[in-house]
Amino acid sequence: MGIVVQNIERASAEIIAGLAECGVATVHEAQGRKGLLAAYMRPIYSGTRLAASALTISAPPCDNWMLHVAIEQIKDGDILVLAPTSPSDAGYFGDLLATSALARGCRGLIIDAGVRDIADLAEMDFPVWSKAVSAQGTVKETLGSVNVPIVCAGAQINPGDIIVADDDGVCVVRREEAEEVLAASRKRVANEEEKRQRLAAGELGLDIYDMRARLAEKGLRYV
Amino acid sequence: MGIVVQNIERASAEIIAGLAECGVATVHEAQGRKGLLAAYMRPIYSGTRLAASALTISAPPCDNWMLHVAIEQIKDGDILVLAPTSPSDAGYFGDLLATSALARGCRGLIIDAGVRDIADLAEMDFPVWSKAVSAQGTVKETLGSVNVPIVCAGAQINPGDIIVADDDGVCVVRREEAEEVLAASRKRVANEEEKRQRLAAGELGLDIYDMRARLAEKGLRYV
Amino acid sequence: MGIVVQNIERASAEIIAGLAECGVATVHEAQGRKGLLAAYMRPIYSGTRLAASALTISAPPCDNWMLHVAIEQIKDGDILVLAPTSPSDAGYFGDLLATSALARGCRGLIIDAGVRDIADLAEMDFPVWSKAVSAQGTVKETLGSVNVPIVCAGAQINPGDIIVADDDGVCVVRREEAEEVLAASRKRVANEEEKRQRLAAGELGLDIYDMRARLAEKGLRYV
Amino acid sequence: MGIVVQNIERASAEIIAGLAECGVATVHEAQGRKGLLAAYMRPIYSGTRLAASALTISAPPCDNWMLHVAIEQIKDGDILVLAPTSPSDAGYFGDLLATSALARGCRGLIIDAGVRDIADLAEMDFPVWSKAVSAQGTVKETLGSVNVPIVCAGAQINPGDIIVADDDGVCVVRREEAEEVLAASRKRVANEEEKRQRLAAGELGLDIYDMRARLAEKGLRYV
Amino acid sequence: MGIVVQNIERASAEIIAGLAECGVATVHEAQGRKGLLAAYMRPIYSGTRLAASALTISAPPCDNWMLHVAIEQIKDGDILVLAPTSPSDAGYFGDLLATSALARGCRGLIIDAGVRDIADLAEMDFPVWSKAVSAQGTVKETLGSVNVPIVCAGAQINPGDIIVADDDGVCVVRREEAEEVLAASRKRVANEEEKRQRLAAGELGLDIYDMRARLAEKGLRYV
Amino acid sequence: MGIVVQNIERASAEIIAGLAECGVATVHEAQGRKGLLAAYMRPIYSGTRLAASALTISAPPCDNWMLHVAIEQIKDGDILVLAPTSPSDAGYFGDLLATSALARGCRGLIIDAGVRDIADLAEMDFPVWSKAVSAQGTVKETLGSVNVPIVCAGAQINPGDIIVADDDGVCVVRREEAEEVLAASRKRVANEEEKRQRLAAGELGLDIYDMRARLAEKGLRYV
Repeated sequence: MGIVVQNIERASAEIIAGLAECGVATVHEAQGRKGLLAAYMRPIYSGTRLAASALTISAPPCDNWMLHVAIEQIKDGDILVLAPTSPSDAGYFGDLLATSALARGCRGLIIDAGVRDIADLAEMDFPVWSKAVSAQGTVKETLGSVNVPIVCAGAQINPGDIIVADDDGVCVVRREEAEEVLAASRKRVANEEEKRQRLAAGELGLDIYDMRARLAEKGLRYV
Repeated sequence: MGIVVQNIERASAEIIAGLAECGVATVHEAQGRKGLLAAYMRPIYSGTRLAASALTISAPPCDNWMLHVAIEQIKDGDILVLAPTSPSDAGYFGDLLATSALARGCRGLIIDAGVRDIADLAEMDFPVWSKAVSAQGTVKETLGSVNVPIVCAGAQINPGDIIVADDDGVCVVRREEAEEVLAASRKRVANEEEKRQRLAAGELGLDIYDMRARLAEKGLRYV
Repeated sequence: MGIVVQNIERASAEIIAGLAECGVATVHEAQGRKGLLAAYMRPIYSGTRLAASALTISAPPCDNWMLHVAIEQIKDGDILVLAPTSPSDAGYFGDLLATSALARGCRGLIIDAGVRDIADLAEMDFPVWSKAVSAQGTVKETLGSVNVPIVCAGAQINPGDIIVADDDGVCVVRREEAEEVLAASRKRVANEEEKRQRLAAGELGLDIYDMRARLAEKGLRYV
Repeated sequence: MGIVVQNIERASAEIIAGLAECGVATVHEAQGRKGLLAAYMRPIYSGTRLAASALTISAPPCDNWMLHVAIEQIKDGDILVLAPTSPSDAGYFGDLLATSALARGCRGLIIDAGVRDIADLAEMDFPVWSKAVSAQGTVKETLGSVNVPIVCAGAQINPGDIIVADDDGVCVVRREEAEEVLAASRKRVANEEEKRQRLAAGELGLDIYDMRARLAEKGLRYV
Repeated sequence: MGIVVQNIERASAEIIAGLAECGVATVHEAQGRKGLLAAYMRPIYSGTRLAASALTISAPPCDNWMLHVAIEQIKDGDILVLAPTSPSDAGYFGDLLATSALARGCRGLIIDAGVRDIADLAEMDFPVWSKAVSAQGTVKETLGSVNVPIVCAGAQINPGDIIVADDDGVCVVRREEAEEVLAASRKRVANEEEKRQRLAAGELGLDIYDMRARLAEKGLRYV
Repeated sequence: MGIVVQNIERASAEIIAGLAECGVATVHEAQGRKGLLAAYMRPIYSGTRLAASALTISAPPCDNWMLHVAIEQIKDGDILVLAPTSPSDAGYFGDLLATSALARGCRGLIIDAGVRDIADLAEMDFPVWSKAVSAQGTVKETLGSVNVPIVCAGAQINPGDIIVADDDGVCVVRREEAEEVLAASRKRVANEEEKRQRLAAGELGLDIYDMRARLAEKGLRYV
């Protein structure tokens, strides 16, 4: 505790943008169904799909001091990712911090705790995925760390990992695997497009995916 | 397990349309306050009010194979109703399955589990009431059944029962009782309209419903 | 139980309007971080910010009789605040009661239980902050009380206290402290405006709030 | 609502006793993994394993009037099974009702709501599986029904079905299937005993169940 | 915040002892079904029934500094009652604080948060009713108050009120009403004893409480 | 997915035994308040305090196949630690698996999911800390991995890390830090013993920890 790592590696802007296009559900499947944050992480307003480099924050419960420290470390294209060291629903983040973060190029916030001023954040178009909305204030008394590995909403996140987030939730992609995951995601998107057209035309998944024989073998009976 | 019932009886389109007009709260009251699914079943987007014939699916936890089987059984005007055999928040259903279901005349999905691709589903105007939103994928390994009686979100649902769903939640009406429930619902709507006008004009429920004597008798004191 | 207090004191309309402008997060901070209702109290639709005098209702679980009694006591500018005497998610309140309440000058409803007809309430622009949405009906069998002190969603609320509510949640301000809290809130708003401009210009909270020395003293290390 | 079915069929005492010996986990597996009540149904004290005929009660929320009606219907060897018509954690049942039920030959209580006087119930050796412990009282105002089909903690239960309950939870067996399920359960117990001895001697499930080839085929790699 | 009230009034030892004998369920009923804390407040070990004077603590989330302050204020026969100012499951209290509290005559702890060292507390016979068990430590940075009115687990508690707690949960009795509540509780106990004997002898509640006519009038049908 | 790491490093038996003696709350504090698993991880029976080397399992939801694979990898003194790849309360583990694990020298199970046969497990003295008790069975269809890093109940756990568990919950200690954490824990225990004696003698924490000046400085007022 009490460490700020100032230089972290980030994935290329092209890879990050590519992952954003694919979206959470596709990226999650493409990387072998790992990296999904808990389903209680919901956007404060719908309609955003983004990807960004994780600037991680390990913060004490009900204490948002480290957010001020973290904002100085923001590079354009980063997203703040905060996990409290024990569970908290307090409102760590509001419109003033968002104003400051935006001024440094921040893309949004992932927080396994609470957020407030959500009407203002929506107006500023500052997206947040959080566990709670709460006006409850926090203190500035105890140190945490910035840009260290954290567990956020059940997922291990390293600084510089890529966060993909949309209305379906939040997924993390390891920086080292990002290129490979992007390729797999794009392949999946292409493959899905063809499937979508066949399904829209009335073909059945039972036939497209050739499921009938295996269903019969498992003993499915039509009555 | 492992049964697909291919022919089920359905209520008439007129009765179903009539129930849709009345909405969940009214229908629930009209049939004696039964048939309501648990309040955690929420729409993925607001503003839809519908009624449809239940095509039921009993599926293993985290396994969406039976959805492919069920889609083949859809008749125009059906709604898919899925209950897992043990609790699951996984994302059983997304835009590809919705594309396929829509092509067969499906009206929507009621699922006591998770759903994903919700931005796409909203754009396609494919309504879903679910327990969770989650990008978490499922497997296709274990059989379930289609068009058998299920317990979904605390309510017993038989294939061909009528599902009424809107922003207030989801209610099931027994197919055999649908006509009677529709009549009672319409009576209730008519009766409410008259009450609404009197209340809007400033009359009090205390007087309209003649409550003052009974309140006094129970001992209510004004101080 | 079984008491209706008919005359309660209320704060002035100016003070109430002033608190509405400041919003929940600011008022909560300005009064020393007290008075916040539990974070599970969420608006049925977003975009409303209001303040109003609390007309309190202590009601039995799953029994909405006292709402009819309470509506007669509404004075223009009041908000209904209902706490059940034991936990309930039932739908105590719907469009008919809202019609009646609106006709008496009611501004909305705070309810530590369920509400229904939410599509209608949204259309009527009748704001509600509730613990649940549920079509489940209630009975009219047991007395409760009106305009007595209650505990609602974890906060003590006295009749005539001021309720401030917006997308961040709900906060209560003691009537006797309202003027002082309004002054402190306005000061806070003014102060925040100046901070917002400096932060938007790229200045850091670390510098504006002079945090660097204290962080170093606590042992923060940059690596 | 408002019906008491006085004569229901029950399984034979031998079958019921046989199911009790097998326990919940075994019976649940033996009948194809169906019939389990939600995992939140927990015993108020541990160490009981029983089976009994379900005497079902559909009761209004926070209203225990029907328990008095149900007790008159108890036959020796019955267990009371209560589901509220909407969720409630109130304490429907305490030591007086238990005294009365015991006097009629009742074996215990399954309740998807709350119970109280649990120290007394433990002393009386009256087992209860419940959703909650709560001293909160209930009223006696609204009718429910006795010996009608109910959904309790997510499981459909018909009057006369057999309830099996132990420290693992609660399972329901259809009366018509009880004999067959008992046979399958006993077979399972016998089979498990042989497995237990081999496992205790250090043999591996991998070998006993012949799993290695299928694991390799699915791609498991040892590194 | 930041106030310690040193002199509070307490009820007499006789009244407190009398309430302890009656237990939570009886006292709660006797005072008109009010004062019950939320059902999530559970004892860390079963078998204790007590009553004691509330020494209240309003503490910041995840900060147990005020417990040290409060212990100095303990008078023989007091029970510590702590409510955090925003939700927290952290372990505020363990065996060292219990040792200190016991040395001052403390009877136990009611805490709407977490507790730790529960094996030690059980061995010391120091009873605790809490929301959670958690080894998570707390800080000592922010002031709270001692012996001020608090809302704990949904109930308003004033310093000097009587806490009654047993395996059924926790109930608060206003100090000013304690004598009257004790009398009502004793009457209830006496009355229940006679009922218990009649019920044990096989008489039905339906007859003892004369319910048959009212049930018939409401429409109950036996089939 | 689909990897079994066969050789992992483990801490020495002395260090592990030393950590067991200190217990969860002490170890958690001694290592800087990190490594605690979520408070919902509770023992199936109380009274056990242990430490053991983590043999980690990443398993699909509702699929316990990997437990069979993991048991072959057990070395004397290991504890199984299972995290599902998406949330599940199913009963992954029962008495047969426990028999097998015990035969290989296993000390117990930490599982962020469900367990069954808990009466048998208690009789066998096989300790389990779990999220749920459930008789719900699982399938054997999909691969997971053994001895890979996992996130279990919110904590990152590497194979060979030391698990400390008792009635307060579960804590993980990094293998590389175990010696240092043990030293710090022992120091803490020694220090606490002296404090305990002074507190038991009636000295106040306010004086022992010299808190009065800082409290006054923060503004605490005695009234």
